[in-house]
Amino acid sequence: MSKDFSDGAAWIRGSIVPIAEATIGVTDWALTHSDVTYDVVPVWEGAFFRLPDYLDRFEHSMQACRMDVGLSRAEIEAALHDMVARSGLRASYCALVAARGAPIIPGSRDPRECANHFYAWCVPYVHVLKPEVAEAGARLLLPDDIHRIPDDSVNPRAKNYHWGDFTQGLFAAKDQGLDNVVLSDHAGNVTEGPGFNIFALKGDTVVTPDRGVLEGITRRTVLELAREAGLKTEIRALPIAELLQADEVFLSTSGGGVIPVSQINERTFSNGRPGPTATRLRASYFDRLTDPTYRTEIAYEPAPA
Amino acid sequence: MSKDFSDGAAWIRGSIVPIAEATIGVTDWALTHSDVTYDVVPVWEGAFFRLPDYLDRFEHSMQACRMDVGLSRAEIEAALHDMVARSGLRASYCALVAARGAPIIPGSRDPRECANHFYAWCVPYVHVLKPEVAEAGARLLLPDDIHRIPDDSVNPRAKNYHWGDFTQGLFAAKDQGLDNVVLSDHAGNVTEGPGFNIFALKGDTVVTPDRGVLEGITRRTVLELAREAGLKTEIRALPIAELLQADEVFLSTSGGGVIPVSQINERTFSNGRPGPTATRLRASYFDRLTDPTYRTEIAYEPAPA
Ligand SMILES: Cc1ncc(COP(=O)(O)O)c(C=O)c1O
Ligand SMILES: Cc1ncc(COP(=O)(O)O)c(C=O)c1O
Repeated sequence: MSKDFSDGAAWIRGSIVPIAEATIGVTDWALTHSDVTYDVVPVWEGAFFRLPDYLDRFEHSMQACRMDVGLSRAEIEAALHDMVARSGLRASYCALVAARGAPIIPGSRDPRECANHFYAWCVPYVHVLKPEVAEAGARLLLPDDIHRIPDDSVNPRAKNYHWGDFTQGLFAAKDQGLDNVVLSDHAGNVTEGPGFNIFALKGDTVVTPDRGVLEGITRRTVLELAREAGLKTEIRALPIAELLQADEVFLSTSGGGVIPVSQINERTFSNGRPGPTATRLRASYFDRLTDPTYRTEIAYEPAPA
Repeated sequence: MSKDFSDGAAWIRGSIVPIAEATIGVTDWALTHSDVTYDVVPVWEGAFFRLPDYLDRFEHSMQACRMDVGLSRAEIEAALHDMVARSGLRASYCALVAARGAPIIPGSRDPRECANHFYAWCVPYVHVLKPEVAEAGARLLLPDDIHRIPDDSVNPRAKNYHWGDFTQGLFAAKDQGLDNVVLSDHAGNVTEGPGFNIFALKGDTVVTPDRGVLEGITRRTVLELAREAGLKTEIRALPIAELLQADEVFLSTSGGGVIPVSQINERTFSNGRPGPTATRLRASYFDRLTDPTYRTEIAYEPAPA
C-alpha cells in the first residue's frame, strides 16, 4: 500500500516517511539547547531554486556550529531530491536540518560528545505572509521594547531556530491587529523579521542591513534584480529613522518572494498601498523562479496507474 | 511484558513510555522556533525536592510565553508523580515541558493558532558539572566576545532552551581545557552559565546577580542557607571586576547543588581549591535535599516478585 505524502515527507535516519511520522527524541540538544542549524530551499514548479546557494549556506552554518553530520554534499542533495520526488510536491517549503543530537555518554554536557545528525522535510509551499497580505501591502510592528538577539550572543549568519524575540514580537503585532514584526538591534538599527530580510528604497537607491541578520538568498536575488532594474544598492547599517523615511519598504523571503510593506507602526508608505518598485520586484522574483539558470529539476516518480 | 525504564521514562500524550520512545514532530514550533518553556525538578532519595516552587515557576513561565497546555496543576503534578514512580528512579533529573505545538491551520505563522501541549521526562540524576569537578573546584571561562542573550530579546525568567550563547561559550571553554563557561551581559555584569547561577563571596557577604538570569530554585535555597549560616546576602548587579576580586566564587544548580569555583580565566580563588564557605554550603545543600519540609514523597510501584 502506498503511503500518503500529500501533507509532506521527511528524510530521516535514511528513510523517507510521511511528515507526520518524522520525529526527534525529546532529549536531543536540537530541542533542549536549540542546538541546531537549518536551511530552507524553495521548490517551485517542480524544481529547486538556487539549490547550490542554499547548500553553500547550509554548509557554512554547519561549520559555524561545529557540526559534522557525516554526509557529503552529494548525499544531502540526493536525500533532498528523493524526498521531494517521493512527496510529489511541485511547490514546496523544503527544510534541511543539522542537529547536535544527544550525548554519546548519557549525562555529558560537552557539545563535542554528541551524535550530530541530519534530517530533511518538505511540506506544501509556505507563504511567510499570506498572499493576500502581500498583495495589499504588509502592516508591520517595529517594537521599541523587543530587540533582535545580538550577533555576539547568537550568530545570525548561521541560520538558527532562536526565535524567542520574534515570537514575542509576533504576539505584540497580532495584539495590535498588525500582520507581522520587524526588529531593531540594541544600537537603533533595523535588522530582520521572522523569516525575512527588509529593504528601504529612497530615490533610486535600495538599502538593506549588513549586520545582525541572516544573509538571505532571496535578499541576494532581490539585490541582483534591483541592479538589473537600474537601481543602486547599498548593504550597510540601516537606522530606524531612515527606514521610516523611505519612499518604499519591502521584505524578501524564500517563503513568498518580495513582500511590499504598506505600514510600519504609525507610518504608512505610498498611501498605504504596495509601492510601484516593490510591486515590480515582486513580479520579477516570480519570473526568476522559473529561469532555467537557477533551477535544479526534480525527477518525480510517475503517478500510479 | 514489562518495559525497561532504566534509562528514563516520559509522560507524553497521556501515556508513560520509555525515554527512547518519547519524541516530538519535526514541525513542532518547540523545535523550529525554540518556542517552548520548561522546568527541571530534582528527585532525590525517592522524593521531589521543593516541588511547589518548581511548579510555581513553570506556571509563571507558561504565562510569560502565553501558553495554555490545557492541564491543571494537579494533573501536571500527577503526571510527574506517575512517570517517576513508573521509572523506578530514586535520583532523577525530571523535566516538565510546555511546547507551542504546530499550527492548527497548516502554514499559519500566527503563534496564537498553535496546539500547545505538555510533556515530561525523567532520566537518572544529571550533574551539570561532574562530581569530581565539583570536588576539585570548577575552572570557568568568562569570554569577552560572547554575551548572554539580553532580557529584552529573550526573557531569561521564563526558563527556555535558547542556549546558542552557552553552546558557543562551552566550545570555547572546552577548547581551552576549562570545565565550563559563565557569561556576562553587554553592560559588563556577570549573568549565569549553562544550567547554573553564580555567587561571589567577599568578607561575610554573598552577592548574586539580579538581572539577566533565571531565578534559580537552588539559588533561593543557597540564599536561605547562607543567611542561616550568618552571612549577608545581596541580589544586585554583579560587575565582572567584583566577581574576579571575590574571596570565593560558587555556582548553584538543581543538577548538583552548590559547585565551588577554583578558577575564572587567569584568576584563581582560594589557591585553586574549593573555598571553605562554598564547601560548607555544598554540604548543607545535600542535607537540605533530605529535609522532610521540602520533600514530596513518590509512591513507587513495588518491584515485581
Ligand atoms: C531570520 C531570517 N532572516 C531572513 C530570512 C530570509 O532568508 P531567505 O531569503 O534565504 O529565505 C529568513 C528565512 O527564513 C530568516 O529566518
Ligand atoms: C540558564 C539557567 N540559569 C540558572 C539555572 C539554575 O536554576 P535552578 O537552581 O532552578 O536549577 C538553570 C537551571 O537549569 C539554567 O538553565
